[in-house]
Amino acid sequence: MAQQDAQNGVTENAAAAVSFLAVKPQLLVEAPKANDAVSFYKAAFDAEEVARALNPKRKADHELPLILSAELKIAGSTIIVADLVDDSASPLKAGGNGVVLCLETEDVQGAVAKAVSAGAVVEEEVAEIEGACCGGRVVKVKDPYGFVWLLCSPGKKSVDVEA
Amino acid sequence: MAQQDAQNGVTENAAAAVSFLAVKPQLLVEAPKANDAVSFYKAAFDAEEVARALNPKRKADHELPLILSAELKIAGSTIIVADLVDDSASPLKAGGNGVVLCLETEDVQGAVAKAVSAGAVVEEEVAEIEGACCGGRVVKVKDPYGFVWLLCSPGKKSVDVEA
Repeated sequence: MAQQDAQNGVTENAAAAVSFLAVKPQLLVEAPKANDAVSFYKAAFDAEEVARALNPKRKADHELPLILSAELKIAGSTIIVADLVDDSASPLKAGGNGVVLCLETEDVQGAVAKAVSAGAVVEEEVAEIEGACCGGRVVKVKDPYGFVWLLCSPGKKSVDVEA
Repeated sequence: MAQQDAQNGVTENAAAAVSFLAVKPQLLVEAPKANDAVSFYKAAFDAEEVARALNPKRKADHELPLILSAELKIAGSTIIVADLVDDSASPLKAGGNGVVLCLETEDVQGAVAKAVSAGAVVEEEVAEIEGACCGGRVVKVKDPYGFVWLLCSPGKKSVDVEA
């Protein structure tokens, strides 16, 4: 708490000026079904796949790489579909409900301070490659109503990271 | 099943031409906290409240009416916040995960046929006032990956329905 208070104190004024760039719902699909899910959304809702990032790690060479994030456009809105790996330390599995909300901002630190100041709780900071929805820094926060937001900088999503 | 097959047969060709208008994540908040949640999203994420529809039914006159849907803009995206009533027959409580996705279309019947054809299952048809996210007809479908979509016609969201 002391740390949170200090953080708020330092950044409170700056946080008021945080600018948010986009909100993207991310659907976490039991691995390795994200690829099938993308096909479903194309067939059912005319989704257009804009970008796909793959996880370079895989258990065996013959396995298909898991999807870190597939970015779909449905009716002009962006939806992210990702494989959810239960046996990893992936922060995504703890989303609680299968849907998290990616909120992009150039000022992740300011956004976190602002959210915490309003009542959100920081769950963890996510390593870049695990962030899945965004490039750069990703911080997972839970709001007072149980919803999980990934505060992240926009970025490398369109880069295919397959090794 | 026979009914579904017949429906698909009739509308299959038309369904291919279904046009989708918008996707709006809907956050279902344990009643009556939706109002607090809206305040939180304003403070934390600079949400702007565009419209609010209230449930005319309340248990007692002194109670605040519940929020059927509060439409927020965050970073240019629309998010719907709604009170989730456990003791009602509300379809929203069965979303399973607290977040459902409203998908607006002028052709709800065609959209349902198209989704079912791709593998979705119709959960139920929602009476207009319970739809919360949209006006007109609302059909709740679950996709093969467990996510709930409300296929609905766009509409009366901006009308305050408080009695």
